[in-house]
Amino acid sequence: MEMTTADLEQLGQRAQTASATLAQCSTTVKNTVLTAMAAALRTHASEILAANARDLENPQVPAKFVDRLKLTADRIDAMALGLEQVAGLPDPIGNVDRAWKNAAGLMIAKQRVPLGVIGMIFEARPNVTVDASALCFKTGNAVILRGGKEALHSNQALVQVLRAVLADQGLDENAIQLIQDTSHETAAKFMQLTGYVDVLIPRGSARLIQTVLQKATVPVIETGAGNCHVYVDQAAQLKMATEIVVNGKVQRPSVCNATEKLLIHEAVAKDYLPTIIQALRDHGVEVRGDAATQAIVPDVVPATPEDWGTEYNDLIIAVKVVQSEDEAIQHINRYNTQHSEAIVTDNYQAGKQFQQRVNAACVYINASTRFTDGFEFGFGAEIGISTQKLHARGPMGLAELTSYKYVIDGNGQVRQ
Amino acid sequence: MEMTTADLEQLGQRAQTASATLAQCSTTVKNTVLTAMAAALRTHASEILAANARDLENPQVPAKFVDRLKLTADRIDAMALGLEQVAGLPDPIGNVDRAWKNAAGLMIAKQRVPLGVIGMIFEARPNVTVDASALCFKTGNAVILRGGKEALHSNQALVQVLRAVLADQGLDENAIQLIQDTSHETAAKFMQLTGYVDVLIPRGSARLIQTVLQKATVPVIETGAGNCHVYVDQAAQLKMATEIVVNGKVQRPSVCNATEKLLIHEAVAKDYLPTIIQALRDHGVEVRGDAATQAIVPDVVPATPEDWGTEYNDLIIAVKVVQSEDEAIQHINRYNTQHSEAIVTDNYQAGKQFQQRVNAACVYINASTRFTDGFEFGFGAEIGISTQKLHARGPMGLAELTSYKYVIDGNGQVRQ
Repeated sequence: MEMTTADLEQLGQRAQTASATLAQCSTTVKNTVLTAMAAALRTHASEILAANARDLENPQVPAKFVDRLKLTADRIDAMALGLEQVAGLPDPIGNVDRAWKNAAGLMIAKQRVPLGVIGMIFEARPNVTVDASALCFKTGNAVILRGGKEALHSNQALVQVLRAVLADQGLDENAIQLIQDTSHETAAKFMQLTGYVDVLIPRGSARLIQTVLQKATVPVIETGAGNCHVYVDQAAQLKMATEIVVNGKVQRPSVCNATEKLLIHEAVAKDYLPTIIQALRDHGVEVRGDAATQAIVPDVVPATPEDWGTEYNDLIIAVKVVQSEDEAIQHINRYNTQHSEAIVTDNYQAGKQFQQRVNAACVYINASTRFTDGFEFGFGAEIGISTQKLHARGPMGLAELTSYKYVIDGNGQVRQ
Repeated sequence: MEMTTADLEQLGQRAQTASATLAQCSTTVKNTVLTAMAAALRTHASEILAANARDLENPQVPAKFVDRLKLTADRIDAMALGLEQVAGLPDPIGNVDRAWKNAAGLMIAKQRVPLGVIGMIFEARPNVTVDASALCFKTGNAVILRGGKEALHSNQALVQVLRAVLADQGLDENAIQLIQDTSHETAAKFMQLTGYVDVLIPRGSARLIQTVLQKATVPVIETGAGNCHVYVDQAAQLKMATEIVVNGKVQRPSVCNATEKLLIHEAVAKDYLPTIIQALRDHGVEVRGDAATQAIVPDVVPATPEDWGTEYNDLIIAVKVVQSEDEAIQHINRYNTQHSEAIVTDNYQAGKQFQQRVNAACVYINASTRFTDGFEFGFGAEIGISTQKLHARGPMGLAELTSYKYVIDGNGQVRQ
């Protein structure tokens, strides 16, 4: 069923109507609904698994997608648990960031409100359907979901369960809508639904995000790509450095906050490179190196110029020897994706310089880049990690799904 | 001299290089430079006026642009004063919004940083060149200016003065750059300078802003359009209502926070409409009315459906009688530009309902819509008024020209 622009506008209009009532929903009602959604997922687990089985039967699903796509009773329970956790989080809507009296005597309050209608574009993971719906609903936003075609039946089953709960609780079920037509043409039209969609959040591969950035006319929050560096300074504790580099590279290599590059000050390179390279190889990591690294550890894979800008998402790391911290910072600012960067040092000035001058969402002294995460930050949830500077940067929790309005109380003031 | 994409990328690269040093500039240095810029404008007033005279000599400048374009010694002094005022404002860069210790013992601080490179696209007012440069510089952002072709000589002269001060003070003069090629083709390329420009802020007519929204691939902050309403509730003090409506409409009708529409509860329409319409006409306002208004004041101009969505920027107002506050809110949310809306009422519930349910940057009880302004809000400056929900909403001062980064101090933490 191909959707026309008019179909999409209708869908956008329904989302807008739902968002207006949703914005006025009390926290108590929202939490009740989220808890009921969790229960409904558990109750309807068998239908969801049956729909998921239909997706998995599709012979066109690439083998590497199967694990992301596959649901089990445990995974459905994890989604339900996620809904309950979001119910337990503080609701940012209605909070007043600050309030003041202006010169004319007006009381001005900057109050948190929902963004309105959020468009989520994602790939094969059905859990994003539930996670994103929960976070958008808790923050009073209507959501329009466009998941990958591989997960269509799973997403349909999940959204049906969530919408039935909304209807049961007397709320507008169009607070959560799924685009059933997974064609690229319809996706492109969705990205241009200005006037209906307030922000698009793509989640998935670098290619997906680039497509959205190029095609969208609706504002986009860019997420995900992470070409993260660890710089081992001459004043580093080398044992700590090894733990941070190995953790950043091997603990979960496929994710965006994994460490992809290692920069080492030349003063410690000769002694330290053999140790750290061996430690990485012990974990199955392929080590690529620049000329200086090759001179010290001759059997590394020679790094090419493309390596410096590449996010491997794999057990590969590229190593470069730098002559100074300044060179390390300049290299990072040239090649990074503004995600997460770390220095290992015991030198106060070196650490502070690095934090101030490196251009990234998260800049660490003496810690693994893997900490860039809404849960690790204590936000209790995460809808993605922003790599842009506008609106939100770094891990995005509930607060980042809000905007604000100024509510102003007067007693007859007019402008002079 | 037509600019190629490569020329623009070079200009973008120079801005990025300048922004990296600018981000590390101390507040003291920035304030010294701003004060020196003010002095330099006064010193070079005669050159600036000569350049402005060349712009004014151009027979192709539309008559209505002449007042916006014209500089005088007083106007140059006002620009210099503006620079000195910005020097006196607190610097938001480096401020920590909040800091906390996470479960793993990391100290996480959310610290204000510049956006990076800001692109300003504007029309015939040369003062925007100086205002925008001052606000961007104070917040550590490099700025690329693209002013209207009518003001090219004036803008060249102003930018030359500002850049000479930067060079004098040992700073990178590319912190402020002017695009000298004012063709539409080059403007379109500029709007697509992703990777170099972090945000575009268009300032000017609705048509300019729409063009930027459609052509830009760089994130845009939408500013300016204001179809602002005043709703006179049945519980309004009518004398106060008249003062608020007349002030909103006539005090400066050409600006975006001027009142464009008047909604009146039917319970007070019969008694009040003749009074308020007479008061508006006494100030030379053309009053248009819906059928119910025409029934009470027969000689109003009949309002057409297009009136409800039109921003007049002129001494015109359209009046509509509504049966309830609910109808007023729904009408506003359908036709407004999310700028500024006001209710006049002494009823507590009516006021609070209006503030919570109306979707706009600024929602007033018992005050003129004309207060939506960075100076009136106490921000000490204004780069524009955002009518979008992402990043910034309403009057944008220095704080709205910043992003943030997380600076994180650890002592060897790795992710479990």
